[in-house]
Amino acid sequence: MRATTLHAPHDIRVEEVPDAAVREPGDAVVRVLRACICGSDLWAYRGEIPRERGQRIGHEFLGVVEETGPEVSGVRPGDLVVAPFTWSDGVCEFCAEGLTTSCEHGGFWGGTPGSDGGQAEAVRVPYADGTLVTLPADAAGDDRLLTALLTLSDVLGTGHHAAVGAGVRPGATVAVVGDGAVGLCGVLAAKRLGAERIIALGRHTARTDLARTFGATDVVAERGDAAVAAVRELTGGRGAHAVIEAVGTEQSMATAVGIARPGGAVGWVGVPHGSGNGLNMETLFQNNIAVRGGVAPVRTYIPELLPDVLDGTLDPSPVFDLTVDLDGVPDGYRAMDARTALKVLVKP
Amino acid sequence: MRATTLHAPHDIRVEEVPDAAVREPGDAVVRVLRACICGSDLWAYRGEIPRERGQRIGHEFLGVVEETGPEVSGVRPGDLVVAPFTWSDGVCEFCAEGLTTSCEHGGFWGGTPGSDGGQAEAVRVPYADGTLVTLPADAAGDDRLLTALLTLSDVLGTGHHAAVGAGVRPGATVAVVGDGAVGLCGVLAAKRLGAERIIALGRHTARTDLARTFGATDVVAERGDAAVAAVRELTGGRGAHAVIEAVGTEQSMATAVGIARPGGAVGWVGVPHGSGNGLNMETLFQNNIAVRGGVAPVRTYIPELLPDVLDGTLDPSPVFDLTVDLDGVPDGYRAMDARTALKVLVKP
Repeated sequence: MRATTLHAPHDIRVEEVPDAAVREPGDAVVRVLRACICGSDLWAYRGEIPRERGQRIGHEFLGVVEETGPEVSGVRPGDLVVAPFTWSDGVCEFCAEGLTTSCEHGGFWGGTPGSDGGQAEAVRVPYADGTLVTLPADAAGDDRLLTALLTLSDVLGTGHHAAVGAGVRPGATVAVVGDGAVGLCGVLAAKRLGAERIIALGRHTARTDLARTFGATDVVAERGDAAVAAVRELTGGRGAHAVIEAVGTEQSMATAVGIARPGGAVGWVGVPHGSGNGLNMETLFQNNIAVRGGVAPVRTYIPELLPDVLDGTLDPSPVFDLTVDLDGVPDGYRAMDARTALKVLVKP
Repeated sequence: MRATTLHAPHDIRVEEVPDAAVREPGDAVVRVLRACICGSDLWAYRGEIPRERGQRIGHEFLGVVEETGPEVSGVRPGDLVVAPFTWSDGVCEFCAEGLTTSCEHGGFWGGTPGSDGGQAEAVRVPYADGTLVTLPADAAGDDRLLTALLTLSDVLGTGHHAAVGAGVRPGATVAVVGDGAVGLCGVLAAKRLGAERIIALGRHTARTDLARTFGATDVVAERGDAAVAAVRELTGGRGAHAVIEAVGTEQSMATAVGIARPGGAVGWVGVPHGSGNGLNMETLFQNNIAVRGGVAPVRTYIPELLPDVLDGTLDPSPVFDLTVDLDGVPDGYRAMDARTALKVLVKP
């Protein structure tokens, strides 16, 4: 089969690899119908996160179960399924608590060496019963819906995790740092959780326009100290109850802390990279600002978010603004790296 | 009257100052019956937190109301009262939310220039109605109880804040970094909130013995990586659900993060000082560890904690192991600085 592999920074290829296959009794093989490129894939693409030479890449996909191991009982060949970006056994202590990203048998497609990646024709799914979520079969015929459902694999659940970490409650003022797909999904999630006011920080009009469509009530185009000042002006000097941080750089974290209201929280889901962490401890301390987040246990959130995606209440599909086939994946990376594409949909 | 003043690092004096007096209509003057020296006073004493020359010091006290301004209605001369370590108006948006430390009219005894300090014969209390809490008059005759009640001014409420920030719940495994008075009060608070297991980190036998008396089930004497390994061994490799950080250094914060269980939280109340913050963002991110805390709004906690102190369920009074009069305050600082005293009680 064909799959995307990363050989060195910026050297990404689509090449022939051994077919995905059942290796353990709990495995399933999923033929990919939709995959996509994540902002966090860019860190590997740019060499900021180490990867082995030729390592697979891509961790967001949905598709049809093609084969299952003898111990799999939750999904059957032919089922339409979505995979969260990490696999998990579904039965360990952490999975039982909903923290599937800390599963004792868990792993991360493309990140765990030896694993398959989602930007491919097919994927071997370990612990299929714990990992995969079955979708209604008729969704396969609805192109828009299928694209929306794909966001359950990462960006929608990650935006939701940030909103939960930030403590978004009905009536809250929320600020969202980052106008990428996760930030935009954070806007959707904040609105869904009842935020009264949602301030989106971003400078790309196409993205901030989308943020408004998704529920943002205000847009702040400034950066750094000017952004902090702008949000403070919008909030009577107090800052936002809940801040969603969806970038992961020192500057974005510093901005997030700077615009949080005393007693508020920063819900962070931007993969940390770079040298500093941007956390001003004096500010956090004096203002009792909580910092809460991390890698999102999206498997846990899928059952909660799925009904809203199915009935159209929640439609993140507009975050995709470029579609490629498998051969077009390298072009997709280049477009996202250059920020000419917001998020790339892959139809193998 | 006489009050403690700080003139330069290690140059602490007890000297004649103008009498505490009502200056604003909402003020009260409190004659100090009990005060004490806080671990955080040492940062000012050592010059690690800047202070003006001759600035007052001390922020923990209880006493008897001597005089009130015309707008004070909540307390009357003769009332026995305890003051939290910050004053607050009790009516602003933040006070209404319980975040009295972010009060729009708030301040910090000894820290806000021009304010009185608690290590003195008397203290001017701004916003007396919002700030002071009346205690039963007969407590004045009970030396042990009076000392226990004094901890409501800071250390008990601060330990409680850390436990709340760390998310202590019934059945939780809690680890406490710091064997000072706040850490020990964190042990008490964790036990009160239903912790099943409490691991106290500390090397001073007298302090860790007290931690056991307060409810600690295990003691870890190691530091740094060895402490992390020891706590992991005690918790089946997982770490503690809730970590109370009561020191404020880079090393203590790093230890706190290192011993937290995935999905857990660090409740931090150690005043941050030093260059680094000890937060390993990759660890926090991968394990979804929350960092939540700050300057404790102890005014808000007093009504909740007071009944348990009055009925003896909660008795932090053993944290005091040295008693001085006002003239003995400089000796008290020296003893705490040298760690020969755990916490110094001042009877002016």
